[in-house]
Amino acid sequence: MAYPDFPSIVAPDQQVHRQAVARHGELAKPAGSLGRLEELGVWLAACQGVCPPRPLGRPRVVVFAGDHGVAARGVSAYPAEVTGQMVTNFLTGGAAVNVLAAAIGATVRVVDMAVDADTPDTVAKHKVRRSSGSIDVEDALSAEETRAAIDAGRAVADEEVDGGADLLIAGDMGIGNTTPSAVLVSALTGTEPVAVVGRGTGIDDAAWMRKTVAIRDALRRARPVTADPVALLGCVGGADLAAMAGFLAQAAVRRTPVVLDGLAVSAAAMVAEELAPGAREWWVAGHRSAEPAHELILTHLQLRPLLDLDLRLGEGTGALAALPLVQLSVQLLTGMATFADADVSGPVDKS
Amino acid sequence: MAYPDFPSIVAPDQQVHRQAVARHGELAKPAGSLGRLEELGVWLAACQGVCPPRPLGRPRVVVFAGDHGVAARGVSAYPAEVTGQMVTNFLTGGAAVNVLAAAIGATVRVVDMAVDADTPDTVAKHKVRRSSGSIDVEDALSAEETRAAIDAGRAVADEEVDGGADLLIAGDMGIGNTTPSAVLVSALTGTEPVAVVGRGTGIDDAAWMRKTVAIRDALRRARPVTADPVALLGCVGGADLAAMAGFLAQAAVRRTPVVLDGLAVSAAAMVAEELAPGAREWWVAGHRSAEPAHELILTHLQLRPLLDLDLRLGEGTGALAALPLVQLSVQLLTGMATFADADVSGPVDKS
Repeated sequence: MAYPDFPSIVAPDQQVHRQAVARHGELAKPAGSLGRLEELGVWLAACQGVCPPRPLGRPRVVVFAGDHGVAARGVSAYPAEVTGQMVTNFLTGGAAVNVLAAAIGATVRVVDMAVDADTPDTVAKHKVRRSSGSIDVEDALSAEETRAAIDAGRAVADEEVDGGADLLIAGDMGIGNTTPSAVLVSALTGTEPVAVVGRGTGIDDAAWMRKTVAIRDALRRARPVTADPVALLGCVGGADLAAMAGFLAQAAVRRTPVVLDGLAVSAAAMVAEELAPGAREWWVAGHRSAEPAHELILTHLQLRPLLDLDLRLGEGTGALAALPLVQLSVQLLTGMATFADADVSGPVDKS
Repeated sequence: MAYPDFPSIVAPDQQVHRQAVARHGELAKPAGSLGRLEELGVWLAACQGVCPPRPLGRPRVVVFAGDHGVAARGVSAYPAEVTGQMVTNFLTGGAAVNVLAAAIGATVRVVDMAVDADTPDTVAKHKVRRSSGSIDVEDALSAEETRAAIDAGRAVADEEVDGGADLLIAGDMGIGNTTPSAVLVSALTGTEPVAVVGRGTGIDDAAWMRKTVAIRDALRRARPVTADPVALLGCVGGADLAAMAGFLAQAAVRRTPVVLDGLAVSAAAMVAEELAPGAREWWVAGHRSAEPAHELILTHLQLRPLLDLDLRLGEGTGALAALPLVQLSVQLLTGMATFADADVSGPVDKS
């Protein structure tokens, strides 16, 4: 039996889905004229199992941080020490994810899965190791570490849902993490490496060549385990990516809606869908990243992004930028008058 | 001399623009990684003439309502009486624009320019007539009415800016108004009528044929006056469209940023750019409407929309859905730590 044994995913409530569609038809506006804001509100109602849906009370971002040995190959524009420095920045509230979350009414938690530096105990509780292995030449994680990382992600999702979170966002922080992310995408979609290599934090042509070589080498290592999502995470993923996969799958187990961020989170989401088929019904894609591999994931998961703003920062920022749309979609279902309430005439009767 | 004589439009502050670009380069994230959120914050700083920009204190929506004689040709799915009913709905707070504005911290004003019903005095102060003329066979407005409508829009913009509004949104309400809007787009872009005819509120094929005929007939009437934006508004526009054109041009005169909504507002914006060249520098496109003519306007005005969510309601709803992105772009410039503040390393030195 495959480990970890996620229970079957129950889809969002189809009866409530129909109720929400019907309610949108009664609101005083041409049918369907609010486009994807209607779809979004209907989805959230179905996730909550109640129509009209409740306003989001505790949207929560969890940033999974981890270093990657492959960063030493020169695949990033930034030195690996930035990962740990940014964890400090998250904790002092100065990062983009903090600013966006505060503006929107979300809160941020940081989880160190494999940062190559010491971090505070509150953050390091689930830490598996210092830096994941350099995936071009070695496994990212041992089998035990892989299981521990997936379990950590599941445990964090459980803690957050038990703590009242009613919408979850995963964010990523890790210098070099677009390299394992691209490998996962290439492996699971059967795409040539060169098609998935992006500029990450903004690398030059020489670094792009190094990154492409590293992805090609890692992909060769990954081929024997592509059909086994847990083994794949250990072979060419990393502790942060494994934890995010566990977190996103467990969110679906706990029937909690998720807004997906960009490349790293969505690469983990692809694996999560392998671990727990149907989990994707609980996710909406916040945005389309500027990273080319992201589009492949969106197509693979059949998710249409809400925003397309050339973001490529990670941290959960693309998901947070889309969160107001989710909040507004709820308000529309809750607050608008119906044709009957407002005494507004319906369409001309053509019969 | 063309009436009305708008003063020359002064562009947003280019020195502050450069300061804001430089500030984004100092914030602790890869350069450019916040994509269009960076551009948006830079634009708003340049509009305000200060970096970092001030948080929006009083974003204001003005919904310009008016009926259109051409509605009697059966070009809409809804009866014309809906325009007046929706004015009441706006005033009692039950419409989509009210719900979105309340959720975002914006406020809504309704201005009756030509509703074919009695409306409260507070709303009807600028009313030019009851319903604009049926543009397939007659002028929408007399020359005097056209001037009065443009002046009303200018006066409303002045009142709002003097009242403290620091961002303006125009919204539209008028059964049948996508017909004159499409005529304006066709006339100003030289596009065949059939390419600009959309489904509006959701018309069937027979109504689409009637709408196409009306647009073709109106366009024939418009040809002699296409080069004169004021005459064009009187010939094939309407009091609501003329007022919105005056409002959007005057916002630029008053150096106040604008988020544009969908087809009707953007059609008025095209005319406003003719009235006051350079006004478009003060506008950002909130969204891409599902109406086909809207894309022609965005191309013509060289505006790239922030959202693409298949909205086609009007009222200012597409602009309001994008407003959180503007607010977030300001927060990022204001609230993020710099590399120096956060003691985060910059890119690897390649020298």
